Amino acid sequence: MNIHAKRIKDLQHLLKQNKLDAIVLTRTLDIGFLTGYYMDDYLLLVSRGAAWAIAPQMFVEDLKVKAPFVTPVAAAGGFEQAVLDLRQKHKLRKAAFDPEYETYNRGNLWRKNGFSEKGGLLGSLRAIKEGEEVSDLRKSCRIAAKAFGLIKPRIKTGRTELSVYRELEDIMQAMGAKGPSFNLIVGFGPNSALPHHITSERKLRNNEAVLLDYGCVYNHYCSDITRTYFHGRPTEEFKKVYSIVARSQKAGLAAVRGGVKAMSVDKACRDVIADAGYGQYFIHGTGHGVGLEIHEFPRLNTKFEATLRPGMAVTVEPGIYLHGKFGVRIEDSVLVTRTGCEILTKTA
Amino acid sequence: MNIHAKRIKDLQHLLKQNKLDAIVLTRTLDIGFLTGYYMDDYLLLVSRGAAWAIAPQMFVEDLKVKAPFVTPVAAAGGFEQAVLDLRQKHKLRKAAFDPEYETYNRGNLWRKNGFSEKGGLLGSLRAIKEGEEVSDLRKSCRIAAKAFGLIKPRIKTGRTELSVYRELEDIMQAMGAKGPSFNLIVGFGPNSALPHHITSERKLRNNEAVLLDYGCVYNHYCSDITRTYFHGRPTEEFKKVYSIVARSQKAGLAAVRGGVKAMSVDKACRDVIADAGYGQYFIHGTGHGVGLEIHEFPRLNTKFEATLRPGMAVTVEPGIYLHGKFGVRIEDSVLVTRTGCEILTKTA
Repeated sequence: MNIHAKRIKDLQHLLKQNKLDAIVLTRTLDIGFLTGYYMDDYLLLVSRGAAWAIAPQMFVEDLKVKAPFVTPVAAAGGFEQAVLDLRQKHKLRKAAFDPEYETYNRGNLWRKNGFSEKGGLLGSLRAIKEGEEVSDLRKSCRIAAKAFGLIKPRIKTGRTELSVYRELEDIMQAMGAKGPSFNLIVGFGPNSALPHHITSERKLRNNEAVLLDYGCVYNHYCSDITRTYFHGRPTEEFKKVYSIVARSQKAGLAAVRGGVKAMSVDKACRDVIADAGYGQYFIHGTGHGVGLEIHEFPRLNTKFEATLRPGMAVTVEPGIYLHGKFGVRIEDSVLVTRTGCEILTKTA
Repeated sequence: MNIHAKRIKDLQHLLKQNKLDAIVLTRTLDIGFLTGYYMDDYLLLVSRGAAWAIAPQMFVEDLKVKAPFVTPVAAAGGFEQAVLDLRQKHKLRKAAFDPEYETYNRGNLWRKNGFSEKGGLLGSLRAIKEGEEVSDLRKSCRIAAKAFGLIKPRIKTGRTELSVYRELEDIMQAMGAKGPSFNLIVGFGPNSALPHHITSERKLRNNEAVLLDYGCVYNHYCSDITRTYFHGRPTEEFKKVYSIVARSQKAGLAAVRGGVKAMSVDKACRDVIADAGYGQYFIHGTGHGVGLEIHEFPRLNTKFEATLRPGMAVTVEPGIYLHGKFGVRIEDSVLVTRTGCEILTKTA
């Protein structure tokens, strides 16, 4: 069975489990995950036995070829009305929408028409990577990891952060990536101390930190990796901080496996940094799920309630940021297994 | 005054006009438009006299430097609660949110706490391009237009759509673009007949249509352009269809000026194609606003109620699609003026 046809079946199974007749989906990534047809501005209505793509006329011919397991319904505007009409025609009494991602206005339209709220169905399907997804994710991460070995020797004194950003993109595209998976961060010197630094025209000087936080999209799947190193002769302080972050990240990776709380991975990382006296400089969570989105379910931080399951893909990325001086972050994307994890972004 | 400080002032003026004490903003592009600090995962609360950025701790140092006219409020999670606290502390009784873009869950949280619904404030500010925006948009469009002259001679028999896609990106990045403004469309032969074709490994053959629908992002501003031509010796049918679309687009451009209905531009394009007997093959709207988003307010189609105003940027892009054979679309991004429009994507 086609992987997308199977995913629709999986969702239909969840509908049955949740005593729902249908669900309306409006997020491009959720719909693309189910159909393989990633496009803004169309809706999907899935019942226990069918799936309708409510789309502009101009998508219809393409949908027939690329997603033959859904029924295209051309709607010139008025997508919501088309959904309501289908629901009535097929007597889909217990219909639902996802209140976390639906807009306020459209959510109210569904509510007014008797839809109920049901979040998390797509989240739970998307969280566990299966089949082709795993190989796409592996490939995406392998491209990113390989790119580090290729770009590092080319980062020389005088180059701007943006020129490195562009070359990193090119290197990854030459290996088959579609593009970057987010606004890649290239931070030189004190810019490395800003966890979400905006890559700039700043030039690299001798003897300062270089931080690269980047990734690519391969067949819709995002990779995420961070490497930090010292350009020139590392200071004692850099060496000390680097070794603490490296130990912290190692502890985090060792804590990942199916069945553990996401929080416990954060704690494993945080304890190492706190014990070394740098707790106040680790100013973000330890990681996040990664897949069709660069940030998706679950989060690995001090508060998020979730249990890691085999097949989930997450990042482990502790850091220490000394404002005005430098920052160090080390990040890998990993696939959770029953007994531990597979590091997807391993570099030499 | 800094352009972003001015935009916040403009919004504060709108709050006063609308008898509101404050508005909470949650869309990255709306917030970036106001602050110049484009980043996911932070909120902006704007009152008549102040603006607070409710953000993760890791953004705070960066915000102080890059958006000194807003007050950063570090909130470890619980952004919504921080907004509610600020509102209470500063007695912002009449507070609002945008129901069109807010999520259903968060919108309900605001409603439960007495916020009212107020859409369109940011839309109306963003629709009229001012100052730096206009030069950024011009530059973005000029890069895209120039790229056509550079890529066209390089599109040869045997090349894949995706290889052209990547080279187009590279060409635009070499001219200073940050990246593509959407999933660029490169369609060869029958693929040109799919308005939203997904660029593929299809190779170019002798004597077939080539359609390029592309654009770039320059300093956050998106450009959008489409060019279609025949690779080889054009058929009579292609020549005929091309000349109809060219006349249609010219009529559309001639109809654009401040004060006219968006619909009337659509009608000008559509009438030419319908009169030529191809009405049923023009299967989409004539255009859309373009700016921080590739598709933004207003739409130019048969239904959307809006009046064009000087300073708006829109596309004019009629097309004829002969399924299984070829499609022709011609698109320019233009800036609406009092007496007509400035074509931003002019090619030789």
